[in-house]
Amino acid sequence: MGDNNFKDLKAVYVNCTLKKSPMTSHTSKLIEVSRSIMKKEHVAVEEIRLIDYDVATGVYPDMKDHGWKEDEWPKLFEKIFDADILIVGTPIWLGEKSSIAQKLIERLYGMSGQKNDKGQYSFYGKVGGCMVTGNEDGIKHCAMGILYALQHIGYSIPPQADCGWIGSVGPGPSYGDTEWKGEKMKTPIGFDSEFTNRNTTFMTYNLLHLASILKKQGGYPNYGNSREQWDDGTRWNFDNPEYR
Amino acid sequence: MGDNNFKDLKAVYVNCTLKKSPMTSHTSKLIEVSRSIMKKEHVAVEEIRLIDYDVATGVYPDMKDHGWKEDEWPKLFEKIFDADILIVGTPIWLGEKSSIAQKLIERLYGMSGQKNDKGQYSFYGKVGGCMVTGNEDGIKHCAMGILYALQHIGYSIPPQADCGWIGSVGPGPSYGDTEWKGEKMKTPIGFDSEFTNRNTTFMTYNLLHLASILKKQGGYPNYGNSREQWDDGTRWNFDNPEYR
Amino acid sequence: MGDNNFKDLKAVYVNCTLKKSPMTSHTSKLIEVSRSIMKKEHVAVEEIRLIDYDVATGVYPDMKDHGWKEDEWPKLFEKIFDADILIVGTPIWLGEKSSIAQKLIERLYGMSGQKNDKGQYSFYGKVGGCMVTGNEDGIKHCAMGILYALQHIGYSIPPQADCGWIGSVGPGPSYGDTEWKGEKMKTPIGFDSEFTNRNTTFMTYNLLHLASILKKQGGYPNYGNSREQWDDGTRWNFDNPEYR
Amino acid sequence: MGDNNFKDLKAVYVNCTLKKSPMTSHTSKLIEVSRSIMKKEHVAVEEIRLIDYDVATGVYPDMKDHGWKEDEWPKLFEKIFDADILIVGTPIWLGEKSSIAQKLIERLYGMSGQKNDKGQYSFYGKVGGCMVTGNEDGIKHCAMGILYALQHIGYSIPPQADCGWIGSVGPGPSYGDTEWKGEKMKTPIGFDSEFTNRNTTFMTYNLLHLASILKKQGGYPNYGNSREQWDDGTRWNFDNPEYR
Repeated sequence: MGDNNFKDLKAVYVNCTLKKSPMTSHTSKLIEVSRSIMKKEHVAVEEIRLIDYDVATGVYPDMKDHGWKEDEWPKLFEKIFDADILIVGTPIWLGEKSSIAQKLIERLYGMSGQKNDKGQYSFYGKVGGCMVTGNEDGIKHCAMGILYALQHIGYSIPPQADCGWIGSVGPGPSYGDTEWKGEKMKTPIGFDSEFTNRNTTFMTYNLLHLASILKKQGGYPNYGNSREQWDDGTRWNFDNPEYR
Repeated sequence: MGDNNFKDLKAVYVNCTLKKSPMTSHTSKLIEVSRSIMKKEHVAVEEIRLIDYDVATGVYPDMKDHGWKEDEWPKLFEKIFDADILIVGTPIWLGEKSSIAQKLIERLYGMSGQKNDKGQYSFYGKVGGCMVTGNEDGIKHCAMGILYALQHIGYSIPPQADCGWIGSVGPGPSYGDTEWKGEKMKTPIGFDSEFTNRNTTFMTYNLLHLASILKKQGGYPNYGNSREQWDDGTRWNFDNPEYR
Repeated sequence: MGDNNFKDLKAVYVNCTLKKSPMTSHTSKLIEVSRSIMKKEHVAVEEIRLIDYDVATGVYPDMKDHGWKEDEWPKLFEKIFDADILIVGTPIWLGEKSSIAQKLIERLYGMSGQKNDKGQYSFYGKVGGCMVTGNEDGIKHCAMGILYALQHIGYSIPPQADCGWIGSVGPGPSYGDTEWKGEKMKTPIGFDSEFTNRNTTFMTYNLLHLASILKKQGGYPNYGNSREQWDDGTRWNFDNPEYR
Repeated sequence: MGDNNFKDLKAVYVNCTLKKSPMTSHTSKLIEVSRSIMKKEHVAVEEIRLIDYDVATGVYPDMKDHGWKEDEWPKLFEKIFDADILIVGTPIWLGEKSSIAQKLIERLYGMSGQKNDKGQYSFYGKVGGCMVTGNEDGIKHCAMGILYALQHIGYSIPPQADCGWIGSVGPGPSYGDTEWKGEKMKTPIGFDSEFTNRNTTFMTYNLLHLASILKKQGGYPNYGNSREQWDDGTRWNFDNPEYR
């Protein structure tokens, strides 16, 4: 492991499957590949299956203040916010990330007005990635939306921060299935995919490296990116284009 | 400026406008806002208007080896690869990035098989962002595709690495226009957009910070992400899922 | 009105706002523009605000058969399926359709295995469109996903089947607002947008025309597109490519 | 064939491969599956490989009027416009349609201001679809963008108007390949995909049915959708929302 010491890091996987526990989530099986690496690297890891919780729909920090009877988001968000790394896992439906993944993005967006003590958006310094599983088509499209949202609210995205598994075009087994149309497989499908295993490994380590680097730095300097300072009139070396 | 010393950094803006020089590129006007900050921070900056060059279409490093008479990509790529930071600028057409931006992505992808001396994909350690202009709709969608492509080939994406300007729904003036349907404007349109100016500033500084941080580190450690080591059988703490 | 007789048609608007009644939905205000035309054309119209119902998450026709205590989808689907025209309305969050719109797509997809009495997928002959509202960015991106999903499960898409309203880049009032940051407006924002009004009108009439044309035809002939016949071995003029 | 008489129809396939003739285009192999059906149905068909022509980049009808020395678009557009059906074929690169497909969309968009003799946008009455091939991921995402663009400029989209072939995640053979990494295949890859063959067949026939239906009707009535009448003040049953 050499100089790579990740033991102070925390990571949260939010699994956006449509299936409540204890139903089998194929996405969870892929998450386990990454999570297993993290555990061996002594990272504190947790997986949240979002649909198991009574999370309200909306874009406010606590929807109980906006007419919803229940909202378990605030307590889940504490865990997400406490972690250095967020990995969003999603199944694919009609080429898109799940409605639960979109709900997660809406709820994260609802927290994005918060600032840290440097006046930056509060997700600055954290690192994000995504894991996508499906039968046949859409890893990249789902990743585009998820990674975009994460960077937009302040997460940093290391190289090759997406991974996933899909089979060839058309219906077929999902990641980790051992049977399809009555036919048994010797190895759970996808487990021997060199491509998926390599991308999952690289994503995991790149998340760890960037989180570690940023954590050692205390996140980003707030020179040029503090919302509070901007609002106070600080402009650093920005010049209004009309006066240049 | 304090500890923020960016003078060893190089940045390249690739403007993917559909218009050849010397026609006015609205995207170039927005690029100038970011570029002006970089220059004041003593960063070496260059803007490449891709359509001004005879760049072939395809996914190989030099298309002259694949039946094209001319291909100026190899010499442009040298500049792009020499820079620590790549910012892709694009106009929006029907809600999509331009065909020139897509061509750029295809050509960058064509270089993505190269490795650095650590055995990593060669874009590791570089940082990317994007700038989008249009009449009315599509900054985020264009950014999703561009930032995805950049991280996929190895660039790192800092927080809030996209910015842009669009007017309200329907036809209208483009960024920097001073006239629309015969009506003169006092200020070039968009120049006084607090939102665009702030996002452009934050993007610029976040690119500088992350590029600076990664450069000081010598890029990413190659523990867990070296393609060459993977191909040689190194697996670090990855375990094949079927044997766990 | 001439030969254009739409009085036998039924249309359903599914409003995928994140806000429960009686909260104001800006999307609903735009829906009203289209709906008002339909009513004057004597079309039977209904608007369903999906979030007002206890609709389960998943991809089966009735999630009560899959561990959910409640699921109002089956009764809502009856109305959707009874209509000739489906218009999906959605707000934009981070450049994407709402999680409720994605849930709707998942539930519609869950019904897509059904066949009509010609052996075609059961949505054949129906017509779809979409309406999108937001502060600033994403009509086209949301429309891409929604219209794709509708045609994929069997809806037909007439020309210019999307419409919407967004303001210029950055935070701002939403469609129909009469106040923004304490400033009162004389006209609700967007109501005087020629572009939005025209696109909404054209979308509405194009949906009516195509629905009317297809209804008179009794939908599509099942020559070349019957799933049941395909499964029975009928291939019409398809030839397996390897034997050509 | 019964009442299904398609012999008066014309169809154009625009193949947006990045490879010039006579290089092998995998997309062309899939196009051939659809085209073969059309020919047996006595439809006049043509395939245009766009990259074989000197088509300029831009959004005007003839870029020779805008500083380009050559532009073969106007003569190609004549063929596209003469056809009742347009099918866009594209390979996938990094999960996106090709730069050539995006260029095609830009050029089609550049023609979208034209009106027919009913005052409608000139693509009204025509029908569009798409065919997508790649190694591993992105049929639906490419189709979203292409079908959106087609409907936006006036094409109608019948049910299930997209088809394609991709292999499972990671590098692999492309559609129609007979060899991969030195291993010979008995059947060209993808040719025996029931899913691809069925979707290609259904797309082809649905395009024919809708084109035939619309052609018999003389396209769409211009009640409610004539741009010229709108510009003259006709509003049909649209009411300005503020006066309702």
